[in-house]
Amino acid sequence: MQKRLGAQTVRFQSPVSFLATASVAGQKEAQGPLSKYFDVIMENAEWGEETWEKTESKMQKHALMRAVEKSGIDVKDINYLFAGDLLNQCISSTFGLMDFGIPFMGVYGACSTMAETIGLSAMAIDGGFANISAAVTSSHFCTAERQYRNPLEYGGQRTPTAQWTVTGSGAAILSGTGQGPFVTHFTSGRIVDFGVSDANNMGAAMAPAAADTLSAHFRETGRNPDFYDLILSGDLGMVGKAALIDLMYEKGYMISKNYDDCGCMIFDIEKQDVHAGGSGCGCLASTFCGYVMDMIKMGEIKNILIMGTGALLSQTSSLQGETIPSVAHVVAISTERNRL
Amino acid sequence: MQKRLGAQTVRFQSPVSFLATASVAGQKEAQGPLSKYFDVIMENAEWGEETWEKTESKMQKHALMRAVEKSGIDVKDINYLFAGDLLNQCISSTFGLMDFGIPFMGVYGACSTMAETIGLSAMAIDGGFANISAAVTSSHFCTAERQYRNPLEYGGQRTPTAQWTVTGSGAAILSGTGQGPFVTHFTSGRIVDFGVSDANNMGAAMAPAAADTLSAHFRETGRNPDFYDLILSGDLGMVGKAALIDLMYEKGYMISKNYDDCGCMIFDIEKQDVHAGGSGCGCLASTFCGYVMDMIKMGEIKNILIMGTGALLSQTSSLQGETIPSVAHVVAISTERNRL
Repeated sequence: MQKRLGAQTVRFQSPVSFLATASVAGQKEAQGPLSKYFDVIMENAEWGEETWEKTESKMQKHALMRAVEKSGIDVKDINYLFAGDLLNQCISSTFGLMDFGIPFMGVYGACSTMAETIGLSAMAIDGGFANISAAVTSSHFCTAERQYRNPLEYGGQRTPTAQWTVTGSGAAILSGTGQGPFVTHFTSGRIVDFGVSDANNMGAAMAPAAADTLSAHFRETGRNPDFYDLILSGDLGMVGKAALIDLMYEKGYMISKNYDDCGCMIFDIEKQDVHAGGSGCGCLASTFCGYVMDMIKMGEIKNILIMGTGALLSQTSSLQGETIPSVAHVVAISTERNRL
Repeated sequence: MQKRLGAQTVRFQSPVSFLATASVAGQKEAQGPLSKYFDVIMENAEWGEETWEKTESKMQKHALMRAVEKSGIDVKDINYLFAGDLLNQCISSTFGLMDFGIPFMGVYGACSTMAETIGLSAMAIDGGFANISAAVTSSHFCTAERQYRNPLEYGGQRTPTAQWTVTGSGAAILSGTGQGPFVTHFTSGRIVDFGVSDANNMGAAMAPAAADTLSAHFRETGRNPDFYDLILSGDLGMVGKAALIDLMYEKGYMISKNYDDCGCMIFDIEKQDVHAGGSGCGCLASTFCGYVMDMIKMGEIKNILIMGTGALLSQTSSLQGETIPSVAHVVAISTERNRL
């Protein structure tokens, strides 16, 4: 049986099961609708550290520690750690995860990182290279805001399309043995550039990449959107979510019934002053590793697509007037493994 | 037959062959001893672009274009592109490779990137997920220097242990069919932190990580250093090279006979004023994809280990007084595939 279904999609043959996931979230996130699903809630933005960068590292460390505890495995049993984050040179992952002593595969996919690391973990397991692999990422409002935009003290006014970087982290432990839920497919994205260059409108920049990968997934698997109980993008926010629904409709897919975006779910957008919604690697990571996995365990959803969408800009590329190319990766998850 | 040999090493079962490699290099590199092995030599540091960042993107683009030409395949036949670089958010890879339209897996391994991308490409092929995969990376003296250290116009004096970032790029195309040379093993590294915090002494920071992964490779494969015609690290430079020889000796391995470092080979260290030697992702990439592959093709070397070593610092972590944790990944290459 072929693993490769098309130009972008692979189907896993062996069972690739989530053993456990864990999520860490900040105070603002804990005041939102998904509060009770986070494993760890930080007391404040510093969480006892001297710098926000150290705090973000601590978030990844605690997310992975908690996931290891929940899974019942020994850290030594993890064969690979696929991890990355938004900070320059991915220092949250480096400093947060170095003490675990696990072979470390650094990944950079901007906010698509959680989907990319889960996809690569599944490939390592199904390919016979790992029994157990972990996927970790994070974002922190304070580190991201000052790196990509302005010093926090500057107090600049936010545009209506701006999103609020989620302070959150998620860790997932995947295994070749386990009772599910299972990773069944991985559709990896191409870089798509629609010429958007406004760093305060990431949703618009990322939606075309999301539509490109999502439509490839349906085309190559022969599935239609109705197959899934939930189609979940990571951080398109209100603007990107609406754009994706339109773009998919143009491609012949009606997704509005069962589609939502973590950036629109993690905050109460009316009340929490987050403008277009949440963003950042930690948005999908903390929502998926908390709320979504709990819904799956409670039997509320059985088949789900998660899609990480990454805006591949840097402060340098923005200042040099470049556009914002984006990439999206899709992971299909089911309570039943592939029947082959 | 088990693919996993130990905590860090996997052995490939199916043939994972290099179809072609190509290298791009700057003027200073072209004045060094490996000049005639580069595929493309840039006329100057700008190479017709408005910014050095755009130049670095162009280097990756041309490296991959040339490798595709040499391999005789169609770009559409490449299933995955594993790529990354040193710039914040890996923008060289994003802007350089987006037009190819290949599923894009962003990687961040600092200067270990070439070994990580080759290793992941081999895993994708041997795991049954790809027929053909490409690995690309780059560095540029001018982009790296101003990002990590000082504006070039500042003209600060360099310390004796400082290295010179190589302006170079390399692209490798790997396939499940082909006549070799073959990727036979991949030993992935753990993050190692020996407490070095001098961003002008990367060799010392990276050598402990190199020793950790290299000794794991020998231990887990049961091979000793003599098995290889050449053991090649990416960019330890003179300081790191000497440190690695010592550290390996302490671990019971004598590597001085058949070990060298691309950072010591790519420049004439006496004459080219590069202090401790070359560094950057492009150092291993352009040396391996040029000189080393030519040596293999001419039958000069049959079994080779390449090791990418990455210093996982950022300007922020350096300014905050953090140490420089490092990681090294090892890829074993042979003109004969694994006999199983």
